Amino acid sequence: MGPRSASPAVVALGGGHGLSASLAALRLLSERLTAVVTVADDGGSSGRLRSELGVLPPGDLRMALSALCDESEWGRTWSELLQHRFSSDGELDRHAVGNLIIVALWQILGDTVEGLDWVGRLLGVHGRVLPMSSVPLAIEADCRVDGELVTVRGQSKVAKAPGPIEELRMEPPDAAACAETIEAIRDADWVVLGPGSWYTSVITHLLVPDLAAALHETSARRCVTLNLEPEVGETDGLGPTEHLELLHRYAPDLRVDAVVADPTSVDDTDRLAQATDRMGARLLLRQVSRGDGSARHDPLRLATAYQDAFDGFWGDVGTRVG
Amino acid sequence: MGPRSASPAVVALGGGHGLSASLAALRLLSERLTAVVTVADDGGSSGRLRSELGVLPPGDLRMALSALCDESEWGRTWSELLQHRFSSDGELDRHAVGNLIIVALWQILGDTVEGLDWVGRLLGVHGRVLPMSSVPLAIEADCRVDGELVTVRGQSKVAKAPGPIEELRMEPPDAAACAETIEAIRDADWVVLGPGSWYTSVITHLLVPDLAAALHETSARRCVTLNLEPEVGETDGLGPTEHLELLHRYAPDLRVDAVVADPTSVDDTDRLAQATDRMGARLLLRQVSRGDGSARHDPLRLATAYQDAFDGFWGDVGTRVG
Repeated sequence: MGPRSASPAVVALGGGHGLSASLAALRLLSERLTAVVTVADDGGSSGRLRSELGVLPPGDLRMALSALCDESEWGRTWSELLQHRFSSDGELDRHAVGNLIIVALWQILGDTVEGLDWVGRLLGVHGRVLPMSSVPLAIEADCRVDGELVTVRGQSKVAKAPGPIEELRMEPPDAAACAETIEAIRDADWVVLGPGSWYTSVITHLLVPDLAAALHETSARRCVTLNLEPEVGETDGLGPTEHLELLHRYAPDLRVDAVVADPTSVDDTDRLAQATDRMGARLLLRQVSRGDGSARHDPLRLATAYQDAFDGFWGDVGTRVG
Repeated sequence: MGPRSASPAVVALGGGHGLSASLAALRLLSERLTAVVTVADDGGSSGRLRSELGVLPPGDLRMALSALCDESEWGRTWSELLQHRFSSDGELDRHAVGNLIIVALWQILGDTVEGLDWVGRLLGVHGRVLPMSSVPLAIEADCRVDGELVTVRGQSKVAKAPGPIEELRMEPPDAAACAETIEAIRDADWVVLGPGSWYTSVITHLLVPDLAAALHETSARRCVTLNLEPEVGETDGLGPTEHLELLHRYAPDLRVDAVVADPTSVDDTDRLAQATDRMGARLLLRQVSRGDGSARHDPLRLATAYQDAFDGFWGDVGTRVG
């Protein structure tokens, strides 16, 4: 390889802990990193704020900001503040301080993106955290329960779906994506989807029409990061191949360039390789887990896998699959 | 006068809006400024936090920090965040965001002073904000109502005393002062008391034994800033001379060097001058109000008055009284 190219512009889409995992890795690789975050949460502190104050649910945005925080004492202290939750018998119980700060900045500045940029500055974040949409969204799912189709509404309920999800919808179905988000995707070199709760944090991004269009039209290459284990609830019993096929079902025309998976989380490597191949993508099988049995991604290992994908260095697995 | 001496070390004691007024002036004069703040509030957002989480009431500390905030866009934005109050029909209604941030930092860091110092750094505050005590205190007052003595407990109730206050007490009566506060007072060149709610923000400082002792023993000179108008409630009907006499009653041995008053708020100048004289102090009669009928101090005018006091430049009034 020649000298490393300039830092790639990367957009990582997701929500919650999954997005934090990809960001913790990508911030080691990219100086032009943007996180695009779901705004459909209706549970916990976010859900209460959304219902009490009529604002975007801030929780996933807060987590993404915290994942991008500077490693200085300053960055770590304010990040810890953002993540701090009150614990009491009263009205503040379980509220995350960062959620309150983000919402207050939105109210003061009257602008979603500006508010998030200010928190980013507080944490010394390298990169930017944007919402998928500037309006609060709701996820709705039809689940199969005892042979009947049951409609479940709200991210917190969909995440604990009472049966296999047959159809996922977004309410409103025509919500506009955040303009800065669209711009970031159009200008990206790489777009990274996953890991994360597949229905409620990953596929959600394909249910916002403008956002889905930008993801299809961008000249950026696309990387899908598979989860380390199936999630109890929404994707119970579905393996990595099924996750990939689910994505394909909701975005059949989406070209994918790279799929990152950990060998220990793949039951049938050949089947996954074939599914990857059918999407025109290369499969990168790498140890990206911590290896401590925790089903959590290791930032350095995941960063190395992304670097291989970005550099087009597919190694033996790519060769085997190609 | 010769060349100006180095920036004096100043400690301003008070609470609420009164302390904000002295700080807004003193920060123009001193690069070594410490605010010492009452922690007896039991009303509003502070009262709810105190009762829900068992912490010091943060509201007056927050206001003092905000009054010391840097004038940059950074300082002003975060100061606005600190002062922002939620408005809703729900559990967050009327909570000030800065109160929540301060309390969360206390919980994270486990140290009152360290938490306040971190907020000070956020705002780019020049100076330091310290509590009078590290434990929450309660004010108790005996008021004369229809000839009977009625005991009123809690700062919010004392501030709206149903009749003239005859006796003021602190609970617990032997609470320790904050160690850093004592140190700041001992090291000060000047100590400034008032303006502010006379019973609940000024005299309170003389009811904490260690703090009162430090105020008596310090080699610093002492300046009393009188209010621009009597307060509805706790000092209803009492003029500036009575305010000075009240202070003398609760600290008969406290030597005072300077008393700052606005001529328009003084009904009987001779009486005030005599009371000042009896305390061994010089009276500085200066326009320190904004002059817009708002009963608010003007930071620049008040700073000029303090500067005259610190420099020993008493002007015509000093001459007339001396």
